[in-house]
Amino acid sequence: MFTVIGERINTTLKKVQAAAADRDADYIRDDVKKQTEAGATYIDVNAGARIGHEEEDMRWLLEVVQGATDLPLCLDSPDPAILEMAYGLVNKKPLVNSISLEKDRFEPMIDYLKGKDCRIVALCMDDSGMPKASDDIISRAQTLVSELENIGFGRDDIFIDPLIQPISVDTGNGRMVMSAVHTIMTEIEGVHTTGGLSNISYGLPQRRIINRSFLAMMVAHGFDSAIMNPLDREAMQVVLTSDMLAGNDDYCMRFITASRSGAIGA
Amino acid sequence: MFTVIGERINTTLKKVQAAAADRDADYIRDDVKKQTEAGATYIDVNAGARIGHEEEDMRWLLEVVQGATDLPLCLDSPDPAILEMAYGLVNKKPLVNSISLEKDRFEPMIDYLKGKDCRIVALCMDDSGMPKASDDIISRAQTLVSELENIGFGRDDIFIDPLIQPISVDTGNGRMVMSAVHTIMTEIEGVHTTGGLSNISYGLPQRRIINRSFLAMMVAHGFDSAIMNPLDREAMQVVLTSDMLAGNDDYCMRFITASRSGAIGA
Repeated sequence: MFTVIGERINTTLKKVQAAAADRDADYIRDDVKKQTEAGATYIDVNAGARIGHEEEDMRWLLEVVQGATDLPLCLDSPDPAILEMAYGLVNKKPLVNSISLEKDRFEPMIDYLKGKDCRIVALCMDDSGMPKASDDIISRAQTLVSELENIGFGRDDIFIDPLIQPISVDTGNGRMVMSAVHTIMTEIEGVHTTGGLSNISYGLPQRRIINRSFLAMMVAHGFDSAIMNPLDREAMQVVLTSDMLAGNDDYCMRFITASRSGAIGA
Repeated sequence: MFTVIGERINTTLKKVQAAAADRDADYIRDDVKKQTEAGATYIDVNAGARIGHEEEDMRWLLEVVQGATDLPLCLDSPDPAILEMAYGLVNKKPLVNSISLEKDRFEPMIDYLKGKDCRIVALCMDDSGMPKASDDIISRAQTLVSELENIGFGRDDIFIDPLIQPISVDTGNGRMVMSAVHTIMTEIEGVHTTGGLSNISYGLPQRRIINRSFLAMMVAHGFDSAIMNPLDREAMQVVLTSDMLAGNDDYCMRFITASRSGAIGA
């Protein structure tokens, strides 16, 4: 079943930033309830935008968000100290966003992760920069999985982010990432793939239309999670529909149920 | 570039049947012009529904359709005698729909095709029935391609139809056909794949939504043609978008042009 990481509680978004600054718990609660009803699997919480306030904002957000939903959280920060604090405050096994192969990030994150009961988003980024070919993505994924397995992580707890790059920059960027996801999902059995899809359409018109088709295309290659807006009704329809078409919806029951409830349809 | 076979001139459709019976050329011309403007690559012409009238209906339709468009035609009949007559009347190299591995159909069609300058839709059907696994589809495709190559056809003139079966009957049916198309497009280099997509959603609600996601998913695996309704604006958007995302639109120019013309967008 597809894992939807709801991306809306992020202080880089103006309204969320204002709500955090004003301690407007109603705004946050309302948004989290909507994401939950719309079918999110995790609620991502990112408090990084108000410089100097990340720790207090994260602490406050975690309390408010967990008061509004029973869903597990995705703890989103580059700072292991923030993640350590947040880990101590969550009620359910969290997803942690993220580790990468960049030296500055890799070592502290591996130290942080040792012995923790969490899942992890692992970015296919290293000190040489963004991947330039499918093989870069695949080899970085293999390294990340093997390093995480070494410290006790199971594959079901690893979400590889292949790093989606704009099709407007190179028309091969879609093919590159689809091919890599196909290989990762086939050859690193049991691991998950995730990521933010909207980068694919950077620089082009009609971005939402592009993002939706690309989501279905990625699911066709085994992509089984996305960091996305659960309130984007059309995108959530594509999740349910493509997950069914990929063979992940027994008797098509989730699709049929969503269709009866009105979640699928114009 | 994706090949759109416009399916609307088919006497199994009530209005087309009435137009054929009444020799209402305006109706046919108008429809064909709309399909042409919407971006069809071929106009399929099927005159099979009025029993006993196929030859005269086909003859009349070919004249009317070719008076309304410069596009090449897809000659759609199970009867080699009708196809022979039709072949003599077309102005441009046609696509012929279709050959299969069923004995009754294969032998007469091979005889018909020998020495003809046409392209051909080749169905992965044999006397044992519909394919039951990806390997069935792949091996039938290989046989069809090799038989057609033996009588002089190039791969660029062969459109393999893997035969899409409903996801409601078996939730593996989507995966089966995507995997087969992936292998065919990778291993039988230069060949095309096509087919009618709507079978995938048979028996389910919200069929158009399902068909659209499935189209993008198939394109993600190399599917490069469909027998479809070019006047389905959303489906044509998915064609343009997914074809770009698959890397087949240099500089994204077709997509950007369509976007500027208003063909992409709500």
